[in-house]
Amino acid sequence: MTCLCFACVVVLQIHTCLTYNPGPEFLKSSIRVKADLDGLGALGDTGWYCIRAILWAVDYELPKSVLAFPGAILNQEGVIISCGSSMHWEDGRSATFHCSFLSHLTFDVTLLGTKGCLRLHDFPLPFEENLGYATFSEASELDYANIEPGRWCPKPNEHVVETQFSQEVCMVMEFADLVQKVKRCEMKPQKTWPLLSRKTQLVLDAVKDSIHKGYQPVQIVS
Amino acid sequence: MTCLCFACVVVLQIHTCLTYNPGPEFLKSSIRVKADLDGLGALGDTGWYCIRAILWAVDYELPKSVLAFPGAILNQEGVIISCGSSMHWEDGRSATFHCSFLSHLTFDVTLLGTKGCLRLHDFPLPFEENLGYATFSEASELDYANIEPGRWCPKPNEHVVETQFSQEVCMVMEFADLVQKVKRCEMKPQKTWPLLSRKTQLVLDAVKDSIHKGYQPVQIVS
Repeated sequence: MTCLCFACVVVLQIHTCLTYNPGPEFLKSSIRVKADLDGLGALGDTGWYCIRAILWAVDYELPKSVLAFPGAILNQEGVIISCGSSMHWEDGRSATFHCSFLSHLTFDVTLLGTKGCLRLHDFPLPFEENLGYATFSEASELDYANIEPGRWCPKPNEHVVETQFSQEVCMVMEFADLVQKVKRCEMKPQKTWPLLSRKTQLVLDAVKDSIHKGYQPVQIVS
Repeated sequence: MTCLCFACVVVLQIHTCLTYNPGPEFLKSSIRVKADLDGLGALGDTGWYCIRAILWAVDYELPKSVLAFPGAILNQEGVIISCGSSMHWEDGRSATFHCSFLSHLTFDVTLLGTKGCLRLHDFPLPFEENLGYATFSEASELDYANIEPGRWCPKPNEHVVETQFSQEVCMVMEFADLVQKVKRCEMKPQKTWPLLSRKTQLVLDAVKDSIHKGYQPVQIVS
């Protein structure tokens, strides 16, 4: 249980958004919009990253329930083209996300905490993959008693994170390392990654369920 | 009715967020948390701006319905301290907002359209009020067929808007001008501003109603 008192620094609310607008040909013929192929549509393709980013922000603690937003857009086969949902934890934390094949490319995460706010606008793929760094924005520790005139809301700070390898290289290195360790009998198959995937899938399925139940709350049972 | 075909450039989804964390003394004694004073709490103080920004983005067309997010936080007097809601238009457009007295200062608007995305992180009060300009970020017209390697998501463009006067000065000038015109019998009292305020209040009341009805959808009747 997260303490929400003023002395603690905690994440209270998260919003993520992953959309792209690949055009009419994609919406007609891509495997991502076919019920018998990638039947989870925009929720599976883009909502997955939104949910995973939200779970990352709460140390992968599953929400107690989800409630999909009314008005999800489905194609003629019943595949989700655009939808969103709220997610709720027992201690009052909450999250919302929006995923879609209809809006311009947007990759946003906003984390609101008691003492600060973090924003990323390129969370699954950095703006400049080849430059060896990525950035995020942070605002924190505002002293309401000492706000300068005309600067009620100070500009957030930009932070640069240098990266030696791209995320895809890191993923292959991690995978190869885990396989090698199992092959050399140094460890049993590692369970962290499948566990995180399963948690993401659990939430995703609950959102789909909420849509299909006419936007009713769906409890998450792990 | 907005056309959602691929040829048209329309706003499809809007997210706004206005939060600040004024601390325990405020939550104990401010008029903004007293049921018999500013009884709308965080919804009235910060949600108002979120709703108004959303209405601005859709040319003040009222949504058909709202659905508050489960888990709104109320104080012992029943005043809203933190809440959020989705808003829905008949043609498929939607919006979400989050307002709170518990999270660090955040002033965000994100507009997702078919062909572009706009972001502001200081929508009610500019970061630098005294500098005579404000900025917003825009990304648009991505050509999926010609994405450069490593630049799947190009960095958004920053735009600078120069301002001769602060928004408060503009408001007083507008008000004084309207009063003068009525005094000189040049026009009857102007109805635009009260109409926009009334629309904002209608949505706000519907969100409060949705919370009090246990997070049920509430239709907007103008």
